[in-house]
Amino acid sequence: MHKIMVLNGPNLNMLGIREPGVYGSDTLATIEANLLAKAEELGVEVSFFQTNHEGEMIDRIHSVYGKVDGIVINPGAWTHYSYALRDALSTIGLPVIEVHMSNIHKREAFRHVSVIAAIAVGQIAGFGSHSYELGLTALVHYLQKS
Amino acid sequence: MHKIMVLNGPNLNMLGIREPGVYGSDTLATIEANLLAKAEELGVEVSFFQTNHEGEMIDRIHSVYGKVDGIVINPGAWTHYSYALRDALSTIGLPVIEVHMSNIHKREAFRHVSVIAAIAVGQIAGFGSHSYELGLTALVHYLQKS
Amino acid sequence: MHKIMVLNGPNLNMLGIREPGVYGSDTLATIEANLLAKAEELGVEVSFFQTNHEGEMIDRIHSVYGKVDGIVINPGAWTHYSYALRDALSTIGLPVIEVHMSNIHKREAFRHVSVIAAIAVGQIAGFGSHSYELGLTALVHYLQKS
Amino acid sequence: MHKIMVLNGPNLNMLGIREPGVYGSDTLATIEANLLAKAEELGVEVSFFQTNHEGEMIDRIHSVYGKVDGIVINPGAWTHYSYALRDALSTIGLPVIEVHMSNIHKREAFRHVSVIAAIAVGQIAGFGSHSYELGLTALVHYLQKS
Amino acid sequence: MHKIMVLNGPNLNMLGIREPGVYGSDTLATIEANLLAKAEELGVEVSFFQTNHEGEMIDRIHSVYGKVDGIVINPGAWTHYSYALRDALSTIGLPVIEVHMSNIHKREAFRHVSVIAAIAVGQIAGFGSHSYELGLTALVHYLQKS
Amino acid sequence: MHKIMVLNGPNLNMLGIREPGVYGSDTLATIEANLLAKAEELGVEVSFFQTNHEGEMIDRIHSVYGKVDGIVINPGAWTHYSYALRDALSTIGLPVIEVHMSNIHKREAFRHVSVIAAIAVGQIAGFGSHSYELGLTALVHYLQKS
Amino acid sequence: MHKIMVLNGPNLNMLGIREPGVYGSDTLATIEANLLAKAEELGVEVSFFQTNHEGEMIDRIHSVYGKVDGIVINPGAWTHYSYALRDALSTIGLPVIEVHMSNIHKREAFRHVSVIAAIAVGQIAGFGSHSYELGLTALVHYLQKS
Amino acid sequence: MHKIMVLNGPNLNMLGIREPGVYGSDTLATIEANLLAKAEELGVEVSFFQTNHEGEMIDRIHSVYGKVDGIVINPGAWTHYSYALRDALSTIGLPVIEVHMSNIHKREAFRHVSVIAAIAVGQIAGFGSHSYELGLTALVHYLQKS
Amino acid sequence: MHKIMVLNGPNLNMLGIREPGVYGSDTLATIEANLLAKAEELGVEVSFFQTNHEGEMIDRIHSVYGKVDGIVINPGAWTHYSYALRDALSTIGLPVIEVHMSNIHKREAFRHVSVIAAIAVGQIAGFGSHSYELGLTALVHYLQKS
Amino acid sequence: MHKIMVLNGPNLNMLGIREPGVYGSDTLATIEANLLAKAEELGVEVSFFQTNHEGEMIDRIHSVYGKVDGIVINPGAWTHYSYALRDALSTIGLPVIEVHMSNIHKREAFRHVSVIAAIAVGQIAGFGSHSYELGLTALVHYLQKS
Amino acid sequence: MHKIMVLNGPNLNMLGIREPGVYGSDTLATIEANLLAKAEELGVEVSFFQTNHEGEMIDRIHSVYGKVDGIVINPGAWTHYSYALRDALSTIGLPVIEVHMSNIHKREAFRHVSVIAAIAVGQIAGFGSHSYELGLTALVHYLQKS
Amino acid sequence: MHKIMVLNGPNLNMLGIREPGVYGSDTLATIEANLLAKAEELGVEVSFFQTNHEGEMIDRIHSVYGKVDGIVINPGAWTHYSYALRDALSTIGLPVIEVHMSNIHKREAFRHVSVIAAIAVGQIAGFGSHSYELGLTALVHYLQKS
Repeated sequence: MHKIMVLNGPNLNMLGIREPGVYGSDTLATIEANLLAKAEELGVEVSFFQTNHEGEMIDRIHSVYGKVDGIVINPGAWTHYSYALRDALSTIGLPVIEVHMSNIHKREAFRHVSVIAAIAVGQIAGFGSHSYELGLTALVHYLQKS
Repeated sequence: MHKIMVLNGPNLNMLGIREPGVYGSDTLATIEANLLAKAEELGVEVSFFQTNHEGEMIDRIHSVYGKVDGIVINPGAWTHYSYALRDALSTIGLPVIEVHMSNIHKREAFRHVSVIAAIAVGQIAGFGSHSYELGLTALVHYLQKS
Repeated sequence: MHKIMVLNGPNLNMLGIREPGVYGSDTLATIEANLLAKAEELGVEVSFFQTNHEGEMIDRIHSVYGKVDGIVINPGAWTHYSYALRDALSTIGLPVIEVHMSNIHKREAFRHVSVIAAIAVGQIAGFGSHSYELGLTALVHYLQKS
Repeated sequence: MHKIMVLNGPNLNMLGIREPGVYGSDTLATIEANLLAKAEELGVEVSFFQTNHEGEMIDRIHSVYGKVDGIVINPGAWTHYSYALRDALSTIGLPVIEVHMSNIHKREAFRHVSVIAAIAVGQIAGFGSHSYELGLTALVHYLQKS
Repeated sequence: MHKIMVLNGPNLNMLGIREPGVYGSDTLATIEANLLAKAEELGVEVSFFQTNHEGEMIDRIHSVYGKVDGIVINPGAWTHYSYALRDALSTIGLPVIEVHMSNIHKREAFRHVSVIAAIAVGQIAGFGSHSYELGLTALVHYLQKS
Repeated sequence: MHKIMVLNGPNLNMLGIREPGVYGSDTLATIEANLLAKAEELGVEVSFFQTNHEGEMIDRIHSVYGKVDGIVINPGAWTHYSYALRDALSTIGLPVIEVHMSNIHKREAFRHVSVIAAIAVGQIAGFGSHSYELGLTALVHYLQKS
Repeated sequence: MHKIMVLNGPNLNMLGIREPGVYGSDTLATIEANLLAKAEELGVEVSFFQTNHEGEMIDRIHSVYGKVDGIVINPGAWTHYSYALRDALSTIGLPVIEVHMSNIHKREAFRHVSVIAAIAVGQIAGFGSHSYELGLTALVHYLQKS
Repeated sequence: MHKIMVLNGPNLNMLGIREPGVYGSDTLATIEANLLAKAEELGVEVSFFQTNHEGEMIDRIHSVYGKVDGIVINPGAWTHYSYALRDALSTIGLPVIEVHMSNIHKREAFRHVSVIAAIAVGQIAGFGSHSYELGLTALVHYLQKS
Repeated sequence: MHKIMVLNGPNLNMLGIREPGVYGSDTLATIEANLLAKAEELGVEVSFFQTNHEGEMIDRIHSVYGKVDGIVINPGAWTHYSYALRDALSTIGLPVIEVHMSNIHKREAFRHVSVIAAIAVGQIAGFGSHSYELGLTALVHYLQKS
Repeated sequence: MHKIMVLNGPNLNMLGIREPGVYGSDTLATIEANLLAKAEELGVEVSFFQTNHEGEMIDRIHSVYGKVDGIVINPGAWTHYSYALRDALSTIGLPVIEVHMSNIHKREAFRHVSVIAAIAVGQIAGFGSHSYELGLTALVHYLQKS
Repeated sequence: MHKIMVLNGPNLNMLGIREPGVYGSDTLATIEANLLAKAEELGVEVSFFQTNHEGEMIDRIHSVYGKVDGIVINPGAWTHYSYALRDALSTIGLPVIEVHMSNIHKREAFRHVSVIAAIAVGQIAGFGSHSYELGLTALVHYLQKS
Repeated sequence: MHKIMVLNGPNLNMLGIREPGVYGSDTLATIEANLLAKAEELGVEVSFFQTNHEGEMIDRIHSVYGKVDGIVINPGAWTHYSYALRDALSTIGLPVIEVHMSNIHKREAFRHVSVIAAIAVGQIAGFGSHSYELGLTALVHYLQKS
């Protein structure tokens, strides 16, 4: 059974509070509960981690080296500048799916660029909390093909 | 029952032939067959159109005005310059999901920019032929929420 | 009696449907009817052509070589990238008036640039369907001076 | 009866003298005389002002606040840098038509950009002294529609 | 007792009329009255000057050389291009405080750049008419420290 | 009584040690003591937080959601790249005043840009430790007006 | 015997009419006749196709997959923006020689860039109708070496 | 006997006061006195004008049309943005020599660009008040050759 | 005896695991052991610190103020964006040697820029784990010269 | 009988040694021998010169003024920066054909730009040693037409 | 008696031959003869050197270290890229006057930039062969003031 | 025993004379003497070459093909533009160490870019004459590992 880690970067703990016009009213807890159900449906094991600390995120990524089979990550605003996060993900060599709740390609210009994309299998952006489920589905499909 | 049109832009008729290292070995016919099955599973009606002619694509988009509920489109290379296609899509005011088989954000620099994104609900890129199924799923979910 | 061709590029067949907040509620048929009346008033003969196909537009431009005295064109989104259209217009060496319904210079940045302008007599932008009448008037005046 | 002010920026007092190859041989007096005739034909009242002093132009614009219904302006070289003029025009909130005798979009690169365009209804460029008449016609039409 | 001159650039004579959504409803007279009261409270003498003429502003700046101790200036739109104003201020070598009513750093891109900043002690932006009082306070504090 | 939090980003704990030529000789403790006195004078309650950890800053900002009325922040070097901090501030929707001790607009080019400004009421830069007092005054004034 | 297809893009059907100062007075028919003679001399078979429709060009390129050994193409103005044409050529994996009658590297700046070059063996530009013969010679030489 | 006008732009009335480290201690009066002597030596007639008002400078330039044979101008900070001044100079079609006391090409980046240069015979920069004498000499030489 | 701190930024704890093709197979422990030996040979005392947390790195840098004589740092991916780290290093005013295992100047474009370089004595890049020994040698030499 | 000089710039003496994967295994001697045969076939006289010294190349170009009828040049890396070479070629006013063995338009970005192109008749790139023969053929054809 | 060296860079040995429309018909020998006369008049000793070899120019500059008092240089096309020449001139620490026969600021964009300017006293451009005499005069004046 | 060549580019023969504030007071002779001692210590043979002529440097590099095992080079100002030097170094396929006495990454912007870096093993910058010894040490270490 494939093991998948779902990572959330800065401010995503505030989902449901922060700009609901942009991000919808689901909280992160609701999203994770839905993902657990989805994971069961897909026959995979899923774990979660959220942090506002770049260093904790990097430590956590290192710590799962050899313990999980793939990563779904919403890097939040780190998407646009954290080369350290990018290097952490490429260090452990696992397949990474990059997800965003909003369609970053039609927001402010600085959000069009992802420094994570270069080391990701693919990117899903714009579907609100459903982006996570699509990302999980995509990763499971990717792992089954490999 | 929601009606969805799946559009494919230039050179996608050559799938399975063209650069299989990048795009996989599925033909467009196979992809459409899979999408038909997926559509049935999702309880929606799906139709298909592919063309290498920008004008035909625009005509087709105009012609479905008021007849379908949403569009999944892989604009191929038009993604990067066809403002006429973008205007055609915004003209009819339907929800649009932009899909790409490869992760355009890690290929040549000119492929990082989508002139379509500004009028799309969301973008899915990098999952080979599975990108279409994710796109269809995303659109159905979007229509059901609205 | 001067002969003038009025050309319309992609999506302009959808006038009256497409984003009326930006383009007004006149259809292309109404605009052309008004232009016929205006042409009569100005003592010139006017013909019309609209297409969403770049190739058809180029073919049409070639075909009027030696048969009309000037062109009024709303190139739609081709304004911003169709160097082939520009070359077609310069090939036949007629005076060209470029018209736009919206003031392209205050919309998205990509719309500020016209690749057509370099081969046009002048540009009129921002007056809705009245832009065409101004363009026709300008062309007739230009032809009478020459 | 609508009242319209026609403004001319720096060096336009030299029309007929300055680079006739680019701007034609009409003097500003001739142009204003023609505009008076045109205004009568259109049933509007028209007044004129030309200055080479940015400050005087701004003062004049402020002074007509509530006294005229619209402005036709050829900002001359201020087009390309006078944000103060732009703010003056937006301050009084009247419809503004921007006119240029030459087609600024095919001259030196610095002339392609108008800092005025963002607050104008529309722009007319390239028709010599006829640009003014087209601008007046466009403004009257705009005022009648509103 | 320190002598301070408060300068206002183009269009600021129209405060209370111009875009009250951005600049508030206070007139320049009200602002100057408030600054007089504030100056009394701070134990300094304050004088005022507003002009829409770049040349008059420069002349005035030259004329106070050796007669005042510092300058509070809202350069209006000159902020973004008047290198002549910048040189005038640096010529007389007095401490300059740059104030803006709106937060120029979150408006149009051209307003993010101040050519004045390089010769100013500091900049205060975004507090409506209160920006002037903060600027006066800051300058008095600066003069007392020196 | 309004509650205000004063935040300081990286390296500001070193004030009085770090480059006194640029930042003056006041320590952060002195600045905070002065702000306490100023707060009492203004009739508001003030609390303080400084950290060199982006994650701690974000956590702290989240934690005051609904508990304070406004924020004065000197983001230090994060000003120029921490989109995560910007999102944290916009998440909780409070008025934010951005302060800098030095005039960032006349230092190295990278310091001219603030990614925080887009979500701030206003910006005060260049007055040494007095920038904080001006920022506190500005925020209190802003809260009283609202 | 090698089979070679010679393709011509938009407006090249107008050769001999269009800007003879730049392109010479040979018509496309003359050029093709000369190429037939040259092909015979080189011992290869040559066929021709010209279109002003991007879609037709792409369809034709797809249709010769496995039927010709190489392509000589003058993409006309598509050279500068048609990523769809580029992808069509790379799809079928044949050697491509890019030819231009004028020396595009010394004309307007937009003509300096070829989006086709990245998938071509080589480029020949500036020799009028002789560019085609050089291109054919180069392709035959390339095929014989391989 | 050739008649030459020497023009000085903004802040040059402050020479001898303003940044003597950059511009030397000569006043404008001294410079003009020296130029009178130099003119006598060269056998030409010389007149002077300085203003801080762009509009006055333009008016003066227009007023000498047909009355002087050439212009030596130090445009001061207008060098870098006054397209209106440039157009004024090109309007009257006289030979223009551009002089600068400092070597603008090694100061701040914005001073490296002259919008005046395109219409000047030549440029002399970096020789303090001697730049004017060199400029006068150059102009006389130019006039004698013509 | 000089005291030197060797700092390592994000992901460098993963050396020997992460992309050995780029960084070699030495672990950080091995590198530090080698540096201890080298330090002994050079007659200096050396201490080590690695963290993936920007805030911890800054805290540590502050804490050695006045306690060590110089710093050798491999900032990892922070090299390219952490202005906070740069300010931390300049705050304490010690000589800093910047080292990189790979030659950052021939990798991806974003790695060519170091925001740290402006406050470093020198930079050593491209020698794998040997870069550290060269950096230590360089720092000792620098301290002995001072 | 036309006289043609074939020039080779820096490092081309190393052909056959240098990166044979890019440039093929022919030495310059072989290429020149082939060109002699080709010249005989074309009925022209050909001479050769290769140097790694920009100054020697310029001297040689000057020395053939009036002695040869045209130049075929492979400028090697000077292509991208030697404005001195460009001026030397334009000084003597002969037709120049620019050749490159590799297709410079698909290599590193700096190789896409030729500072020589602006003064050349045409450019041939990408055909290995055959580029020279094509260049010679093109020049002879050009001379015969003139 | 001051000793001055006049240096000329690449292609200036061809003066009188090369593009007389741009550079006039004087040969370098004539220019040097005129400069000898001018030097005598000014009471200085002058020597000359021209080369097309960057290395020879640098060697010559080094060789006059301590032997001449100043340099007048027309760097020709090296102006725009030879940082080595710039460093050579700054190495010997003499006053340098940069002269150009044409007004480089109104020719092709690449000629607007001088990499030499940063180490020169001043620049004179646009006066044909008279630029040298002005440069010599300027240098003598500069030396006499020092 | 490994053979190493140490190359120095333009102006480095002037070390000890040129800008000692930047480069120190060691002459090149002293540096080479120190390197001889260092080479003996490291057990390698070292030879030296300096030139101000790009062509001589390229010739020398070619001439050591197959005769030395590696190169230490300080390219001086050629670092920033000599693609010919870069190609020469890549032609002979030896390991290259790039050294600079100053930290080029904190000087003028043009010095931040090295066109040599792309073909070098590594780069050492900022340690004065000690940079050479570090470079020699690095190269020997590199050769021993290979």
